[in-house]
Amino acid sequence: MTNKDARTPASVQDEKSQEAGKSIGWHKAYVEGSRPDLRVPVRQVHLTNGQSVTLYDTSGPYTDPLVDTDVRRGLPPLRDNWIIARGDTEEYAGRPVRPEDDGIKHTSPRGGLRNLDAVFPGRPRQPRRGRSGEAVTQLAYARRGEITPEMEYVAIRENVSPEVVREEIAAGRAVLPANVNHPEIEPMIIGKRFLVKVNANIGNSAVTSSIEEEVEKMTWATRWGADTVMDLSTGRNIHTTREWVLRNSPVPIGTVPLYQALEKVDGRAEELTWEIYKDTVIEQAEQGVDYMTVHAGVRLAYVPLTANRKTGIVSRGGSIMAAWCLAHHKESFLYENFEELCEILAAYDVTYSLGDGLRPGSIADANDEAQFAELRTLGELNRIAKRFHVQTMIEGPGHVPMHKIKENIDLQQEICEEAPFYTLGPLTTDVAPAYDHITSGIGAAMIAWWGTAMLCYVTPKEHLGLPNRDDVKTGVITYKIAAHAADLAKGHPGAQEWDDALSDARFEFRWEDQFNLALDPDTAREFHDETLPAEPAKTAHFCSMCGPKFCSMKISQDIRREHGGSRTEIEEGMAQKSKEFAESGNRVYLPIAD
Amino acid sequence: MTNKDARTPASVQDEKSQEAGKSIGWHKAYVEGSRPDLRVPVRQVHLTNGQSVTLYDTSGPYTDPLVDTDVRRGLPPLRDNWIIARGDTEEYAGRPVRPEDDGIKHTSPRGGLRNLDAVFPGRPRQPRRGRSGEAVTQLAYARRGEITPEMEYVAIRENVSPEVVREEIAAGRAVLPANVNHPEIEPMIIGKRFLVKVNANIGNSAVTSSIEEEVEKMTWATRWGADTVMDLSTGRNIHTTREWVLRNSPVPIGTVPLYQALEKVDGRAEELTWEIYKDTVIEQAEQGVDYMTVHAGVRLAYVPLTANRKTGIVSRGGSIMAAWCLAHHKESFLYENFEELCEILAAYDVTYSLGDGLRPGSIADANDEAQFAELRTLGELNRIAKRFHVQTMIEGPGHVPMHKIKENIDLQQEICEEAPFYTLGPLTTDVAPAYDHITSGIGAAMIAWWGTAMLCYVTPKEHLGLPNRDDVKTGVITYKIAAHAADLAKGHPGAQEWDDALSDARFEFRWEDQFNLALDPDTAREFHDETLPAEPAKTAHFCSMCGPKFCSMKISQDIRREHGGSRTEIEEGMAQKSKEFAESGNRVYLPIAD
Repeated sequence: MTNKDARTPASVQDEKSQEAGKSIGWHKAYVEGSRPDLRVPVRQVHLTNGQSVTLYDTSGPYTDPLVDTDVRRGLPPLRDNWIIARGDTEEYAGRPVRPEDDGIKHTSPRGGLRNLDAVFPGRPRQPRRGRSGEAVTQLAYARRGEITPEMEYVAIRENVSPEVVREEIAAGRAVLPANVNHPEIEPMIIGKRFLVKVNANIGNSAVTSSIEEEVEKMTWATRWGADTVMDLSTGRNIHTTREWVLRNSPVPIGTVPLYQALEKVDGRAEELTWEIYKDTVIEQAEQGVDYMTVHAGVRLAYVPLTANRKTGIVSRGGSIMAAWCLAHHKESFLYENFEELCEILAAYDVTYSLGDGLRPGSIADANDEAQFAELRTLGELNRIAKRFHVQTMIEGPGHVPMHKIKENIDLQQEICEEAPFYTLGPLTTDVAPAYDHITSGIGAAMIAWWGTAMLCYVTPKEHLGLPNRDDVKTGVITYKIAAHAADLAKGHPGAQEWDDALSDARFEFRWEDQFNLALDPDTAREFHDETLPAEPAKTAHFCSMCGPKFCSMKISQDIRREHGGSRTEIEEGMAQKSKEFAESGNRVYLPIAD
Repeated sequence: MTNKDARTPASVQDEKSQEAGKSIGWHKAYVEGSRPDLRVPVRQVHLTNGQSVTLYDTSGPYTDPLVDTDVRRGLPPLRDNWIIARGDTEEYAGRPVRPEDDGIKHTSPRGGLRNLDAVFPGRPRQPRRGRSGEAVTQLAYARRGEITPEMEYVAIRENVSPEVVREEIAAGRAVLPANVNHPEIEPMIIGKRFLVKVNANIGNSAVTSSIEEEVEKMTWATRWGADTVMDLSTGRNIHTTREWVLRNSPVPIGTVPLYQALEKVDGRAEELTWEIYKDTVIEQAEQGVDYMTVHAGVRLAYVPLTANRKTGIVSRGGSIMAAWCLAHHKESFLYENFEELCEILAAYDVTYSLGDGLRPGSIADANDEAQFAELRTLGELNRIAKRFHVQTMIEGPGHVPMHKIKENIDLQQEICEEAPFYTLGPLTTDVAPAYDHITSGIGAAMIAWWGTAMLCYVTPKEHLGLPNRDDVKTGVITYKIAAHAADLAKGHPGAQEWDDALSDARFEFRWEDQFNLALDPDTAREFHDETLPAEPAKTAHFCSMCGPKFCSMKISQDIRREHGGSRTEIEEGMAQKSKEFAESGNRVYLPIAD
């Protein structure tokens, strides 16, 4: 795969625009910070009226025609100098990669060695970790009053002062996921004071997708606005797939280490041990995973609380841990060893995403005792993590009817001391499989308005199958809508400028500007062209809804043209307008050949 | 078109199911009321566990294989006997239909007479109206304490007592749109105490669609759950198209008479007169239009309030009336003649949908002075309409950010004395053309939870083009999701049973039941089959998300099987469970050939 393959959407658009003899409408630009190696990417949209609009950009170097990307080489390690300059980390030999890491066993009847063809061919690297005993986390720096280049970077992205970023991280109200072994990322921040973020899940769970497809899904998801990506792969090549994804990802990558640990014990939950789990966490931390879902809140005593639920335990991690607890009738090894886990995560700056293993899987189970018992434990774990300077966010549900959503965010904020909430939807009804991006987009917008910092997307295939390329795009766009609707409702500075620019373009019939400002320019253009395909229709002062003869926006423009200025002037101008309107022929219809 | 053509979706599903050698999963059933001619249709879903679930059904006789429908003949006039038995209406010659009613002028250079081939060929009928001076509205009956067959019908549909229906109508908190000239409808009710309803718009505005296509769009929309349909046709054959739609529609039909009136003056807004408008209203009332959008709230003094808006006036009706007011510098003829209009509507039981001609067309214009000035006038008009016993609902926006939505419904309910609110979305952001079913579905769910009675759908083509068949379906399904999410949040009796039934089916891996209970069974089945096409996969105890080897629901089932019963029993059973789990081989994975 070369640059061109990885950035299909942008390329297609550019080529189409160029074919039409137009400017491309937008380009990748950079805002430079206090040092030359701190360049924050933005999407600069050029309007036909000479103005331009600057939008947040998650697509990485793939949309920059001046950067020659190659997925076999990986992205440039932007943050290497920043990490090294801090002097608190060291390279070390690292844990040897074993065939079992890729789900391949010598003893397996399937036989075979590790698939060496698939090994990531990029520059050799050694893993890095904090020097003995040192927390190398953005939280530790923020608490010491240090503004790191990463913090300055996100301050520029969010249009706030670096000090606000530092304060929010120091208070635990925001996280900046940035493993020292993932220097390729463009730093981003997750917290209620900032723009609402969207996570997209990828993963080769059904052995249906190849490594290349997973990398391509990641670049595709970030192209449409995913702020982070979780690699939920299971089965074969899990280690190698993750390596390819990490080396090519401009956004933080999250995982659920428990999935891989379970693979290593051939799916026998009761054979899981703290040692196997810990080894897997270190394996992934050395690769550069930025945040990890840890289901340490599923305690033995909570499992029976799910017995009378309509849909029991629907979280994979939650059910694995529940099965382990039942098998041994012992407290969860994740809960028991949580402090040691904190030490490991602190050494790499891996952020906790404390999993809600007991989240409700149906409307009937929302806000029940099992769910909130686990939430209280997550609050306890959050406090422990903070003692170790580990950045922490808290995962949330799930399936929740609208009137029970607010209680979720309010309780979480109270119990978890305002740690960022990271929710899956929630789905506001169970009756629409194939449309759960929408059932959950509704809940996501609401819970984000009320303070959720990041939304995990849901695709149309939820509950039914594996998302393909179109599903990933639909999921991301739906969740960008929910996130932006929340940014507007929260009054996020600058959020409305985007809406205003698009509405101005709509009112002034600047069709190309409307398309270029849209969350999905390609589909907006395609839908327009379906009814009015001709090129002149893109400069026409009407659209296909009211047809060429009559248009409410056109009349409004006339009214505004006549009545610009203050209210008094407007009222004075009324009689005059009436006269002129009559003189001009009193036509509401535009003249048109019929 | 015959029965088969009109009911494609049902037929396709039936045939597919029969091919697979299965029962069809659901059938059309009827609940009989206090008289044999009062039979309320329901969708009876048969589950594989022997239970059944009864769902509200809007699809009309088209989904009943025992009814032989024919769009050239029209639907049977269900309500004829009820209307005649009341003895307060009379047949009369009616207004002669003129070529101009179909947009055809003898003087037009296009020439030509009325397209006689298109004239509806069904049974000849004379229009009916209230005997002189009598209001023949459901509101008048309700106020007199009468429970009509229509009220009993909707009481059965809504699972409430007929007296509740009568009370809500009498108080003006609900409307039952049912023109005496549209006896074909299956009565339905719109009010916050009842299930949230969804309206779908159709209309041949760009001369791109034929009469047949409009009829087919109507049956298609109701097949997926549209509770009412607005025919927004303009241009040629407007009268005849409406006749075909009305005679074949099992749901109430709404229109905007102003659109046709404007056609009659060749698009010159200033040439509109009260006489032309009145004649058009009578024309449509005689045909059987059940509710009409009337933009009588756009008063002369409000027009300048829109001058400094970002997107001016975006309602077609609103901009036509604004242009008229400006041209004449006179008060709106709709406002001035509102009482006479009430008399006309009362004689046919046409319901008012008081239009919000000054609704905001962008986030920037939400909740502004123009919008709320008009709303206060709508409150005044609502009181006048009630004096004439005319049923009345109030239209609402539009484009509104989430934090400004509640003010809309709260103000409307206060100003309009709890008259049903009927909103278009609202769209919660302007930045996603091609996804405005979603931007607006979010706002629709919220405003419906807070008390909006009916939601006007928005399709993916909003702002871009004319909706095709797929867009209509997507719009309806999205809005059924919003409506049902609101029913759940309002705690509507029985609403959650549907979710519970589907979640039970999901938990128990009854895939066919999941599909049949889904809002869109076809797409749910298709998405499932895309990843796991084989027939055995539909009885498998896993899905493609976690694959065949591991499944959280499966573990949950084990837990529940062991821990059924009370909490104490569960806790006592824990140690036992642990023992058994170990004895059974401690397998989380299901055995599978690999």
